[in-house]
Amino acid sequence: MRDRREKNRAIVRGYHDVHAIALIGAGRIGTIHAAHIAAHPRLRLACVADPALEAARAVAAAHSAHAVDVATALGDPTIAGVVIASPTDTHVDYTLAAAAAGKAVLCEKPFDLDLATARAAADRLDAMGARVLIGFNRRFDVHFATLRARIAEGAIGAIEAIHIVSHDPAPPPIDYLATSGGLFRDMVIHDFDMARWLMAAEPVQVFARGACLIDPAVAAAGDIDTARTILATARGQLCTISSSRRSGYGYDQRIEVYGSRGMIRVGNIAATALETWTDTGGTTDPIQHFFLDRYAQAYASEIAHFADVIDGTPPLVTPADGVAALALALAASRSVQSGRMEAP
Amino acid sequence: MRDRREKNRAIVRGYHDVHAIALIGAGRIGTIHAAHIAAHPRLRLACVADPALEAARAVAAAHSAHAVDVATALGDPTIAGVVIASPTDTHVDYTLAAAAAGKAVLCEKPFDLDLATARAAADRLDAMGARVLIGFNRRFDVHFATLRARIAEGAIGAIEAIHIVSHDPAPPPIDYLATSGGLFRDMVIHDFDMARWLMAAEPVQVFARGACLIDPAVAAAGDIDTARTILATARGQLCTISSSRRSGYGYDQRIEVYGSRGMIRVGNIAATALETWTDTGGTTDPIQHFFLDRYAQAYASEIAHFADVIDGTPPLVTPADGVAALALALAASRSVQSGRMEAP
Amino acid sequence: MRDRREKNRAIVRGYHDVHAIALIGAGRIGTIHAAHIAAHPRLRLACVADPALEAARAVAAAHSAHAVDVATALGDPTIAGVVIASPTDTHVDYTLAAAAAGKAVLCEKPFDLDLATARAAADRLDAMGARVLIGFNRRFDVHFATLRARIAEGAIGAIEAIHIVSHDPAPPPIDYLATSGGLFRDMVIHDFDMARWLMAAEPVQVFARGACLIDPAVAAAGDIDTARTILATARGQLCTISSSRRSGYGYDQRIEVYGSRGMIRVGNIAATALETWTDTGGTTDPIQHFFLDRYAQAYASEIAHFADVIDGTPPLVTPADGVAALALALAASRSVQSGRMEAP
Amino acid sequence: MRDRREKNRAIVRGYHDVHAIALIGAGRIGTIHAAHIAAHPRLRLACVADPALEAARAVAAAHSAHAVDVATALGDPTIAGVVIASPTDTHVDYTLAAAAAGKAVLCEKPFDLDLATARAAADRLDAMGARVLIGFNRRFDVHFATLRARIAEGAIGAIEAIHIVSHDPAPPPIDYLATSGGLFRDMVIHDFDMARWLMAAEPVQVFARGACLIDPAVAAAGDIDTARTILATARGQLCTISSSRRSGYGYDQRIEVYGSRGMIRVGNIAATALETWTDTGGTTDPIQHFFLDRYAQAYASEIAHFADVIDGTPPLVTPADGVAALALALAASRSVQSGRMEAP
Repeated sequence: MRDRREKNRAIVRGYHDVHAIALIGAGRIGTIHAAHIAAHPRLRLACVADPALEAARAVAAAHSAHAVDVATALGDPTIAGVVIASPTDTHVDYTLAAAAAGKAVLCEKPFDLDLATARAAADRLDAMGARVLIGFNRRFDVHFATLRARIAEGAIGAIEAIHIVSHDPAPPPIDYLATSGGLFRDMVIHDFDMARWLMAAEPVQVFARGACLIDPAVAAAGDIDTARTILATARGQLCTISSSRRSGYGYDQRIEVYGSRGMIRVGNIAATALETWTDTGGTTDPIQHFFLDRYAQAYASEIAHFADVIDGTPPLVTPADGVAALALALAASRSVQSGRMEAP
Repeated sequence: MRDRREKNRAIVRGYHDVHAIALIGAGRIGTIHAAHIAAHPRLRLACVADPALEAARAVAAAHSAHAVDVATALGDPTIAGVVIASPTDTHVDYTLAAAAAGKAVLCEKPFDLDLATARAAADRLDAMGARVLIGFNRRFDVHFATLRARIAEGAIGAIEAIHIVSHDPAPPPIDYLATSGGLFRDMVIHDFDMARWLMAAEPVQVFARGACLIDPAVAAAGDIDTARTILATARGQLCTISSSRRSGYGYDQRIEVYGSRGMIRVGNIAATALETWTDTGGTTDPIQHFFLDRYAQAYASEIAHFADVIDGTPPLVTPADGVAALALALAASRSVQSGRMEAP
Repeated sequence: MRDRREKNRAIVRGYHDVHAIALIGAGRIGTIHAAHIAAHPRLRLACVADPALEAARAVAAAHSAHAVDVATALGDPTIAGVVIASPTDTHVDYTLAAAAAGKAVLCEKPFDLDLATARAAADRLDAMGARVLIGFNRRFDVHFATLRARIAEGAIGAIEAIHIVSHDPAPPPIDYLATSGGLFRDMVIHDFDMARWLMAAEPVQVFARGACLIDPAVAAAGDIDTARTILATARGQLCTISSSRRSGYGYDQRIEVYGSRGMIRVGNIAATALETWTDTGGTTDPIQHFFLDRYAQAYASEIAHFADVIDGTPPLVTPADGVAALALALAASRSVQSGRMEAP
Repeated sequence: MRDRREKNRAIVRGYHDVHAIALIGAGRIGTIHAAHIAAHPRLRLACVADPALEAARAVAAAHSAHAVDVATALGDPTIAGVVIASPTDTHVDYTLAAAAAGKAVLCEKPFDLDLATARAAADRLDAMGARVLIGFNRRFDVHFATLRARIAEGAIGAIEAIHIVSHDPAPPPIDYLATSGGLFRDMVIHDFDMARWLMAAEPVQVFARGACLIDPAVAAAGDIDTARTILATARGQLCTISSSRRSGYGYDQRIEVYGSRGMIRVGNIAATALETWTDTGGTTDPIQHFFLDRYAQAYASEIAHFADVIDGTPPLVTPADGVAALALALAASRSVQSGRMEAP
């Protein structure tokens, strides 16, 4: 307890170094980032830019900030970091511009849907020495982050296999699918990132089997809604990924890691710790349905990590990570067609 | 998902009604309240008062606010609400002053340690029609709040009995005990409040058995460190409370409610959802040790409720609730001495 | 695995020492004992005695045994052990007769309902050096037996407190209550035995609060259906017992033990390990409702222990244990009347 | 409770119809079958045949039976059923001989390792109208049997996918592998049977990826120790199987079934219901390590089902089921070699 108090005092003592942040995008995810910036002891929300001016003003007012345009934000020398939460097709351009202006950047995923575009931008940012954090939120989840720390410490010996379950509560609108890039690029890409990060090894072979079991309209739109994927590394480590657009019971986000000395797993998190027992048995509350509920802490920790990035810590997720996950997604799509293993 | 977005937009739209808040006390709990105020879409932290000026300035800087003195804060007509997180012996005076200035008040517990003082202040605030919320944080915990909602909805029929486990991770310094008011007034008072709130009935008899099992120094200081208490309502409903100054395994905070049709319980919450399995069995992470971790969400919800109180919602916890819990604590102390049931 | 095979071979090798057992009582519990005797590698069911001749014949036929009368069974010199599962009022007489005939005895509980009768018989059996095992089945439950072993090994340090939940699924017929001896002697007596056994210390003070919350007919019959009891040992260790004639959700049988270094608990056991997740949340199967299901393994282990008793192992539960538990039950009844602590 | 007593009485009443059983094989599994036969109210162990005469005599003595030779057992007209627990290479011959003698047969798995031999014998038994139960024990496990009943009742809607985890605690001796038939025929064959049984549909495509991660000696012996398999039915339903010769934490036997309305799963079963909480977190007992512990109830239920088969119930597992599982195992082996999907 004493340690905590000391740490607390240390945080409070550092008020001379509160960094000013510009937020681009005042939509759903931007609003969430704004609150975490305002609550953080070493960040303050200085300005908000969004073509929807009312939205920008509202977010600004709630946290003692100002509504501005993007050029003003990027041109302001007092701004240390830029958080990009605007539409996907602006991500690469805003990131490059903010980096060119010397700002640290937190860019929402996806960085881009096209492999060549993403790769070129990643290379350019790398050449600039830019500090860019890509918003793969799951890496900041305390459960998954602790999982990785434990396996890195050797808690279950050498890692042999991983099993990832990632089922959305309910499918998105059919309209959305046409522009989503398909199941693997849109949704399983998170799991490809987790697989790479947890195994600390690159998959060299990908087998995927897809199916359309939920809604024939998905097949009509040229997509699948269910898949099982097997990844293999050069050493023979295996990763299976269970993917579904609809669980029927919530946002199913589980990972099991098998090692030479045992197994570690992260289970789902119910909305409450309640158990009710009656003559029909025991019931618990549903698991969290909404990704913003399941990953509320992850978004706060992502902002906290961004504060550290501004202070010099290397970003945990780089544009190169986004590129690698995208390559696995494309290999999985090819495997569904070929019926055999493919290389990324 | 659509509903959430609508709600989100509604929150954002209301930026004309962002309330200015004054914080009195920039210590550990004040710092936490400050962050929740800054993050809330309908509150903004306007000023911070603390005799420790550096602390006040640091908290203010982190959230775009100003350091002021108490008189300035209470005299500022733009301030809608005052959060009192200063030392206990100032609670009653600051609450009365802020209420007299027409502010809504969130006052940290304990309101006061003396039954007569607390009762007199509660009566006066009541006569003034003051809007005062007492910070019994557990009522805002999502688990306990949902528990109460479920039993009120009749999920397990008529309530017959409650069992509360409330064991601190480790005892406080012996010095602290001398001024704490003793186990029942200092610690079990939370559980007396929960018992009253959950049973929705007043206990009329109290039996308590105390012991000093953890540290003989506690007995030397005239206190006990372990107790078991039985409360009975007029209808015969029974509540048992298991109290300990030291669990050895974390901050054990559990409640079971028994009804005519079943049982509902809230279990402990581990720091993570990890399970590790090796040849020695399964292990989970420790339950949360620190009350600020276990009740982090409760403190945020308490601030959110305070925003509603400013907008006219009646406070969930009133000064009268503090008085009633204090009376039960005193009856329990008497029962330990007499070896028989006592009335509060 | 090798060890198990060796042990298996050792068991098989001992076929010259298969002990012949007589069963008195071919009712529900007698039938269960018969199957466990037949399955055990060192016991065989030789004969069954019951005034209901058809029942005796049926049980005998199922296990290659013979139906006889009690005198024949006790007079047969090839019989090594007698299992008494006849009505309660015959227990003391049959036990004394079988012991006088030199047999080892397993006598179903209750040994007797009257304290003086039970104490006198226990003394006489003790003087005879009789090998008598009283069927307090819970001590043979693998969960509770392992619990005791762990706390004896010091897994949680010095034992400070115990909490026992023992709620029946549904109340017995009102008729039964008149002759049952009341809640404490009939039902809580099991928990008094567990408290003594687990704490390895004798309670010296008893406080109990009773209520009639389930059925007014219970009060009309002069009994209570709900109780909370606090036991204290000379050292100040505390045991709470939560008792109910009706849970509404199954046979609730849980124990928590608190020590200087942590806590151990035994939870309920669901009928299956199934979890079902749908949009209303997670559900598990009900916990086992019927005591013969919950304690199926305990009854088999009790018979296995009886085989060891025949071979010279001291009985784990003696007539003296039954007497001590009965004394606590009577003290609890007195406390409900007096509203204060009583000595057993 | 009344129902149970009625049923109990009904069982007891039927003592005229206690069936005499012959056991062939007095080794580890034969000894277990013997105890379950002896305990069953409608079966009695009449005779035991084993070339190891001492073993046969020991098992017989423990359950009031006689040691005989196989010819005598099969020639005895009072014998209604034969349980075959002898070495694998005798299974087909003894089954055919016992069926020819008009007995009902319970034959331990594997029926045979060779597909042609197994198929020919299955066809011949079918032509004879023989009543033959193959000992795929997992189908009798209460957890998996209830799982199948629930999904058949539609608890989670239409079945879309299954995930089976089946990891042995520790690898068998390397010597054993040479004659085992390899990972798929020896071990995963159980899971192929479960997949067919639970999906109630035949897999038409098999993809498997194998690895040797545990012990290089396994690879040297021409086998793999780790595999991940994907099965697909004609409708597109997917089944994944996670296989390992060594878990490091016990006998991991789990199944999850995903449907259009939710998910059902069977988790592992710890050896006890104990939880211990100390400052390092919570610990539970290891899951059961030994298949005879994990499936103790399943073996008893298998014998109970065999009693029903003698009375005319069709066997739950037929020789044809063994043939179908074997065909899937062979397809999986081919897929590991080809790197693509194979048909069984």
